[in-house]
Formats: sequence, structure tokens, C-alpha cells
Amino acid sequence: MSNRTILLASRPQGKPTPDTFRFEDRERPTPSKGQVLLKTLYVSVDPYMRGRMSDAKSYVPPFEVGQPISGGVVAEVVESQHPELAVGTVVTGNLPWQEYSLSDGKGLTPVPTDGPPISYYLGVLGMPGLTAYFGLLDICRPKEGETVVVSGAAGAVGSVVGQLAKIKGARVVGTAGSDEKVAYLKELGFDEAINYKTTPNIAKALADACPNGVDCYFDNVGGDITDAVYDLLNTHARIALCGQISTYNAEKTPVGPRPEGKLLKTSSMLQGFIVSNYAKRFPEGVRELTQWVEQGKLTFEETFTEGFDQIPAAFLGLFAGENTGKALVKVAEPNAA
Amino acid sequence: MSNRTILLASRPQGKPTPDTFRFEDRERPTPSKGQVLLKTLYVSVDPYMRGRMSDAKSYVPPFEVGQPISGGVVAEVVESQHPELAVGTVVTGNLPWQEYSLSDGKGLTPVPTDGPPISYYLGVLGMPGLTAYFGLLDICRPKEGETVVVSGAAGAVGSVVGQLAKIKGARVVGTAGSDEKVAYLKELGFDEAINYKTTPNIAKALADACPNGVDCYFDNVGGDITDAVYDLLNTHARIALCGQISTYNAEKTPVGPRPEGKLLKTSSMLQGFIVSNYAKRFPEGVRELTQWVEQGKLTFEETFTEGFDQIPAAFLGLFAGENTGKALVKVAEPNAA
Repeated sequence: MSNRTILLASRPQGKPTPDTFRFEDRERPTPSKGQVLLKTLYVSVDPYMRGRMSDAKSYVPPFEVGQPISGGVVAEVVESQHPELAVGTVVTGNLPWQEYSLSDGKGLTPVPTDGPPISYYLGVLGMPGLTAYFGLLDICRPKEGETVVVSGAAGAVGSVVGQLAKIKGARVVGTAGSDEKVAYLKELGFDEAINYKTTPNIAKALADACPNGVDCYFDNVGGDITDAVYDLLNTHARIALCGQISTYNAEKTPVGPRPEGKLLKTSSMLQGFIVSNYAKRFPEGVRELTQWVEQGKLTFEETFTEGFDQIPAAFLGLFAGENTGKALVKVAEPNAA
Repeated sequence: MSNRTILLASRPQGKPTPDTFRFEDRERPTPSKGQVLLKTLYVSVDPYMRGRMSDAKSYVPPFEVGQPISGGVVAEVVESQHPELAVGTVVTGNLPWQEYSLSDGKGLTPVPTDGPPISYYLGVLGMPGLTAYFGLLDICRPKEGETVVVSGAAGAVGSVVGQLAKIKGARVVGTAGSDEKVAYLKELGFDEAINYKTTPNIAKALADACPNGVDCYFDNVGGDITDAVYDLLNTHARIALCGQISTYNAEKTPVGPRPEGKLLKTSSMLQGFIVSNYAKRFPEGVRELTQWVEQGKLTFEETFTEGFDQIPAAFLGLFAGENTGKALVKVAEPNAA
């Protein structure tokens, strides 16, 4: 009756390493009245979690050293003392990196098991998909024929952003870090895709790919790519600032060309956001995204790692640019399957 | 019948100097049918004009070398062949730095001569006042009790921003470059005012002045002050990017700490703008501002330089931080006065 868990061993300085994590074996708990025992099926590893490993003030509180790391999980109810969550129910929620967890049901969302794959609720129908949906449609608001640039375009968020922008009739340009990812973006319908690692001059490549300038920029990455996009902004451009993965492991504030003059000259708008700002509209987002998935207009790739013990490696892989689409760890098969 | 004009002699590299300008004496023209001859009364010198002296792409086309510089002017109709603009009418518009100009009336706005001083139509009731009005009320949207920071607070725009923020019930903190200006801001009702030139640590001074963080930032200046404000942003802060005078004379893009991470963590919004984005709403802005001026809720300081030949010096003084409130050159008395 073991129950492995992964704790934050120490706060990383710069890039996290395997030593950032510590495995511990705990007792498998028994639910009391009003509780369920959840078996972890899929664990989501996401770039934003790097931020929670530091103790800097941010939009979510930091992880505690010596406590389990937590994040997006799909789990199955395997024991229940809860009136509404029967054994066999599959749920998604923010849960510890742990094989079995207790919950009183708060913050859990049951997911249908007769529709899209349940792992999609950590991806295109979960936080990454909703991030793409609200960031693109509420902040960037692309119009037909406008040019949308997406950085980190082959990731879980970026790949959805690009497809939604195509659905809205925009010209879409993506950046990614390998030729395989570039090929994947072309398959998804991106008009242009740039391998930023092999392009000798990212500014020129972006300028060539955006002959009519840039109206919308959905930024997951920051750094040089973002600097180059700022030089291409059209008047009244809209920038959704979603992530800055190129800087997450920096030990001090990175320095770069000041963007303000460029944003000023073009009357551009830049909005930082986190998907939870839109929590009230999640049902709308899930409904719309599900529809596009079911219509085949929105496809979604997942990179699976297998086994609970591989969670740290899957997380570290995010910063090596190893995954296409959503990085997930498959921990167990559903009992009810 | 002389008619002096001021041409752009050469594009400045870095800071403009007296050699940037050339005086020329031209013939005083005679209006044809549909035209008026305007006598220049007041000339506005504004930081944004520095941008037009370079040939970089921007929101307004560059001045041409060898052609007259133009900007905001209050002038009087002294000869008329125009059906609607009688002799004695005072107008404001974008006109050359020239003692007398011809116009077909397009782009001219008649101003009342029985209300506030006519020079106000280059200041609190003109572009600077409207810039403050729309930038603060449309972009920053301060709520009662929120903290608003204004950089360049003693300038023509900043001094209006601060007063409008007080009218809206906000706590207002301004930065300026002399003790006289700081004293002036206190007179205007600013809660805190900081002399950024004598404060040893601008970041600490701003943090002390903003114990509840910053909800709105109206930026006229850029650079170090802006970097420090970014560190104090509250969640969902709004930044109106109006000017970057600290960087206008830079010969290449200035470098600084990247702001994106800070904007992301706080879900902040930054909007570059130019007042002409709001052209359709100018009548609303002038009406509201006039009301506050007449009620004594909004006061406005002007720094006058006298004489047409002093226009270049008045312009250069902007970059030395010499003026409080609006910098104007008085060229002539109205004939009709």
C-alpha cells in the first residue's frame, strides 16, 4: 500500500536539476466522511511551475521546501465517502505529485470519459487550451487577414493559439526550436514557421515571414524573439504576454533593448495575464474548444512520459525544448477502464 | 513685410543644438479665395517634436530637412478670403514655425476669446490636456483610493494627469527634476512628489511613497524611474505609455531590465498611445477640461519665452528640464486685443 510523492528538495538556483526533487514513500490514506481517495492517472508538467520553485512574490504562492509539488492532475476516484463523487469518476484538479491523494472534492472538476481522451483535460481542454483561448481571443482579438505571431508555437499553448488564429482567418507565423516542430506547425496550418535555433538572423526571418507587419503577438518565450517582433509591430498591435520561458531560469532580471519606445510609436497594447483571470468564463472556453476538437478543426499533440518516477525528468525536459504539444506523465491506467 | 520662418537645418544626432535650426526670411503671402492669412501669436514646443526631427518611422512623418518645422500654434486671422473665418478670429492648429502663414482653414479650430486664456488651447485645453485626459481616464482608469504614479509630473501633461487623478479620488505620486517642481506638485495637491535628480535611490523613494503598491502609471519619461515603478505594480495595474523623454536623444535603442516578467506576474496592461487616437472624442475632452478649469479644480502653469527668435532655445530647454507646466513662446499680441 505504498504511496510515492515528490517533494521540493531545495529551491533551484538557475536551472532546476534532478536534485531539486526528492521522492518519499508515504502511507496510502483512507477517506473520512466527505472525502475521496484519488488515484493519479496523468500528471501535467508546465513551465509556470518553475516560478513556484522560487520564493519570489508571484501570482501563485511558492512551493514549500520539503512539501509535495502540486500541479494539474487527472485522477480517478478509487474510494469514496463523498455524496457526489462516486468510485470510477474521473476528475481534474490541482493535486500533489503523489500516487494517491485525499480530497474533499473542492476544486475538482469531473470530466466525461466518453468524449475526447481524458488527458486532453490537462491540455487542449484544460489550462493550456484555455490560456490560448482567452489570451488570443480576449487580448489579441485577431481580425481576418491580420498577422499573428506566436512564440513557443509548438508547445501546448502555442499550438492551440496558432490553430485558433487560423480559425479566425488570420495569417499565422510561429517560432519553435527544432525542424520537427517546424514541420508539425506546417501540418497544423501555420503559414510560416521558423526554427529559431538554426535561423542565423531571427529578426530578418521574422521580417520576411511578416511582410505586412505584426498585428498580434502571443508571447510564450520572451528574449530575442520578442525583441525582433517589437520591431515589426503595426499601429494598434495587441500583445498577449503569456510566458517568458527563455528567462525563467535567469538568476537576475535579464537585460534587453527597452521596448517602451516601440510600443509607444505604434500605440500598441501589451497585456500580461494568467488563465485564472478568466476563471468565470472557463465553461465557455471548454465548450468552444471541445466543439472545435470534435469538428476536427483543432488538433492536439501530447508528449507522454511513462511512470511516476519520470515526473522530474519530464519537467526538466520542458527547459530543454524536448516536447511537442503538451508534456504529460502517464502514471496509471484508470481502474474503471 | 518680412516673415521669418524656422527650418530644420539638419537632423540632430543625439541632443538637438542651435545648429539644428535655421532662420530664413520669406515674403509675407497674400490669401487667395478660400484662404486666410494667419499671424502667429503663441508657439508650442513639445518633446514629441524631437521624434519628427529624426527620419525613423513613427506615428507622424518626419520633418523635412530644409523645410519649416511645424507644431501647435495659436494664431489670429489677419486677412481673410474664407467664408467662415473672419478677421480677428483666433484659431489653433498645426502650423509652421513662421510669423505669418496661409491656410485654407482645414485642421484649424476657432477658440473663444472670452473664456480661459487663448494660450490654454496649446496646454490644458489643447493636446497636452487632452493627452492627460484620455491617457488617464481611458487607459489608466484610476479608482478611488488607488495609487497613481506620474513621471514628468510637473510638465504640461503630467501636471494635468495628477490633478485629474486627484479629482477621481486616487492617491497621486509624481516625479520631477527640481525642488521647485516638487513644491509646485505639492501645491497642485499631489500626495507625494519626488525630486529624482537629488534622491539617492529612486526605487526606494518610490517604494516609500507607494506603501500600497502602484495601480496606475502614467509614463512620460521612461528609463530608471519606469524600471522602479514596474517593481511596485499591483495585480491588474494599468500603464499609459505617453512619452519616453529620457530616451529621445539616445542614438541607439537604450537597454534596460526586461519588463515583461514583471508585467506578466502582475497581469498588468501597458498601452502606448498618442492623443490623436482619440480625435473623435476631443470635443468631450475639451468640454470636461474647460469645466474643471472654470470650477478652479484644475490649475495650469505656463512657462513663456518671448519672441519668435527664442523658439529654438525654448525647444532645447525641454531637454534640460527647464520648464514647469507648458513651455510656450509668445510671438505676438493679437491685433484684435
